[in-house]
Amino acid sequence: MPDVTTAGVTTTDLYEVTMALSYLQERMEQPATFSCFVRELPPDRGFLIAAGVDSVLDFLTRFRVGLEDVEVFAEALRQPVGELAPLLDLSFDGEVRAVPEGRVVLAGEPLLEVTAPLPQAQLIETFVLNQISHQTAVAAKCVRCVLAARGRPVVDFSLRRTHGTEAGFQAARLSAMAGFAGTSNVAAAYAERLPAVGTMAHSYVEAFEDEETAFTAFARTHPGPVTFLVDTYDTESGVAAAARVLHALDRAEGAAIRLDSGDLGALAVRARAMLDRAELPQVQIVASGGLDEFAVHDLVSAGAPIDVYAVGTRVGVSADAPFVDSAYKLVAYDGRPVMKLSSSKVTAPGCKQVFRGRGCRDVIGLADELPPAGTVPLLETLMRDGVRCAPRTTLADARQRLAADVADLPAAARAIRSPVPVEASVSAPLAALTEDVRRRIERAVLAPYGHYA
Amino acid sequence: MPDVTTAGVTTTDLYEVTMALSYLQERMEQPATFSCFVRELPPDRGFLIAAGVDSVLDFLTRFRVGLEDVEVFAEALRQPVGELAPLLDLSFDGEVRAVPEGRVVLAGEPLLEVTAPLPQAQLIETFVLNQISHQTAVAAKCVRCVLAARGRPVVDFSLRRTHGTEAGFQAARLSAMAGFAGTSNVAAAYAERLPAVGTMAHSYVEAFEDEETAFTAFARTHPGPVTFLVDTYDTESGVAAAARVLHALDRAEGAAIRLDSGDLGALAVRARAMLDRAELPQVQIVASGGLDEFAVHDLVSAGAPIDVYAVGTRVGVSADAPFVDSAYKLVAYDGRPVMKLSSSKVTAPGCKQVFRGRGCRDVIGLADELPPAGTVPLLETLMRDGVRCAPRTTLADARQRLAADVADLPAAARAIRSPVPVEASVSAPLAALTEDVRRRIERAVLAPYGHYA
Repeated sequence: MPDVTTAGVTTTDLYEVTMALSYLQERMEQPATFSCFVRELPPDRGFLIAAGVDSVLDFLTRFRVGLEDVEVFAEALRQPVGELAPLLDLSFDGEVRAVPEGRVVLAGEPLLEVTAPLPQAQLIETFVLNQISHQTAVAAKCVRCVLAARGRPVVDFSLRRTHGTEAGFQAARLSAMAGFAGTSNVAAAYAERLPAVGTMAHSYVEAFEDEETAFTAFARTHPGPVTFLVDTYDTESGVAAAARVLHALDRAEGAAIRLDSGDLGALAVRARAMLDRAELPQVQIVASGGLDEFAVHDLVSAGAPIDVYAVGTRVGVSADAPFVDSAYKLVAYDGRPVMKLSSSKVTAPGCKQVFRGRGCRDVIGLADELPPAGTVPLLETLMRDGVRCAPRTTLADARQRLAADVADLPAAARAIRSPVPVEASVSAPLAALTEDVRRRIERAVLAPYGHYA
Repeated sequence: MPDVTTAGVTTTDLYEVTMALSYLQERMEQPATFSCFVRELPPDRGFLIAAGVDSVLDFLTRFRVGLEDVEVFAEALRQPVGELAPLLDLSFDGEVRAVPEGRVVLAGEPLLEVTAPLPQAQLIETFVLNQISHQTAVAAKCVRCVLAARGRPVVDFSLRRTHGTEAGFQAARLSAMAGFAGTSNVAAAYAERLPAVGTMAHSYVEAFEDEETAFTAFARTHPGPVTFLVDTYDTESGVAAAARVLHALDRAEGAAIRLDSGDLGALAVRARAMLDRAELPQVQIVASGGLDEFAVHDLVSAGAPIDVYAVGTRVGVSADAPFVDSAYKLVAYDGRPVMKLSSSKVTAPGCKQVFRGRGCRDVIGLADELPPAGTVPLLETLMRDGVRCAPRTTLADARQRLAADVADLPAAARAIRSPVPVEASVSAPLAALTEDVRRRIERAVLAPYGHYA
């Protein structure tokens, strides 16, 4: 996977810099562990997909605070550059344990844990969240489209409405990981070795005198199988023109028509009938236009004769859940487990592991627990001493892992409408530690100020 | 504005390449005009904001198809490189007329019109839509936050959950254009000369033995005004600790506390009372945590004693409307106005202009019409012969334009809940042309195949 995010160390929230500087000045450089997880699944999600981990590892590999960065930090903090000297040359030499790209993950499960000297582990927070959050959201959305299509090919047409070109590139990669058959994104297809797919726009048809002339010219340019967009003026006249051109040029093999507006299910039925009557049973029907997993599910359930689903905008931005409730929380510092207690956002302390049983029945436990019988640990050590210690994930590997994990989910979690999320349980040692730390905090931090309660 | 989108010409949908190649082979290089507009406003939007135009002009300035690009295209099309020779060295030498960044725009109004030889104007479509769509959506969301805060400062904390770092940078810039008082995004603050803002994370408090120790250390590092995050364990104990430290270190001037969870309105009332009792009336209250314009509106309406609103995720991704229904449609080719008729997606033909009257009462007309009395044209010629012919928009200009336009909107369009969009009207000449072209198409294209209707 190429590194499309070229963000530097100044692509961060200001408070990371303030805190890192303070830690350095206070000589608080003992190892800290931060855990990145999603607190709750968005509505209509039964699972999430680990994604963005490789983008984080790329970033950490090149992470180093240069003099220019210090100047930028100093201006942001309105402090003299000299005050920020401790930040100069800071790089990342810690450890990253993470769930490899493509695996199913559940609410509350650590996707990634970073253990590094506190200033380093803090300074990378914003980038970690930025990448993990949106990639995880989009990957899960893509998987749901594949599930909705029940075996029919799904392709990615999202680039024109993703939040920028970086997001578009990542959407193409994530859609491939989820099992899409191709993408319209030429740069991403080239970089990731994916099938590039595409047809023609309405503007193409409009630029010619009529549809038949347009389709004929398109076929001349396009020596391979052609797909004609038939709904520029009127879908049935478009299908008729497509049928005549396919016959006239003897180009029916591998050909398709695309429907992009109106009642796609009804139009597909009429188009199919017209094509069959025109003795073109081999010509496929591609549907596009505002599709997402809900629309695909409804069309497939209704038996629409659609052969390929092209999804775009709503999937590329994960329109119904464009973010996940992710967190990057300090869980241990200098050997001491820590946690946050504030209302509705309690975090469990300590370095963790996820133990996966059959059917994605997971137990969240402590990293040093023995795996319960019949489970395997999900988090793997991917970086040690700031250096990758595992081969870069290939898209093929991630895709295979993803398919296996999704197949292993209970059917209710895979449902398109009202999915039932699988819930991870908590191991006895983790539960006991959480209780211990809570009591320690209540004693040490809260009790002295009880009179304010 | 720096150019954060470094995407090249291969960051495009495949069909743009297919079509451009076909046009070149067919010698269809006459001037074409494409119009980029938003068909309908998303729910809960009374207006949109022109944004992304400068990103497009940057892209067009550097647009040139090199040999490496042709190789990428050839692989995507599975054709020999030689077949794609007509694409080599293609650059953009057309004209761009657009609504300058920051202006209010309405549904159906062209944001941008490109006139160039057909292959060029087609090949840039994907990038134009990619930038205009998400920037317009995010800009409108940011403006609504400023309106909801009714004069109280709003700051941008969105970087951690935007769809990548490019989107995060743009969100920071757009929030400043909308009138935000600062951003947490250090790189964007530096590049755009915005106030960088930030406080501390819960992890900072947890890394110390207790809150008082943490706040004291933070104040040591931070010579300027400090903001203490008070809800790591229990908000009232946090406020008490903050008050003690501010008094002990004599750092109350310019200081603030931040509330990030729970019932922000109720907690702000209690925190305000505690601070006032502690003789710290000058200490401000910053609220954050899942805020958007709806939450800010409710807090402000309820009289919550919150001085600064920090909004993040939901605003940076425009969570309730993460995309707009944008289009880039061919409206004229070789002097001939064209249009699309397919169901619910009719586009009006011809090069257009928007004539703005007082109160954003707009008339969409043809580019060569005389402006109706009391109106000014919105679209300006920003690029001619592929060269920028207007100075680059400064953020200060855009911000000023935006504030004036938003102030000029009817109050109902500015409402946070159930806003009433302003609707543009259509000029008589544009309505007449639309009818003419529709009749021509029905005669020429559809009539011969009437038997399929």
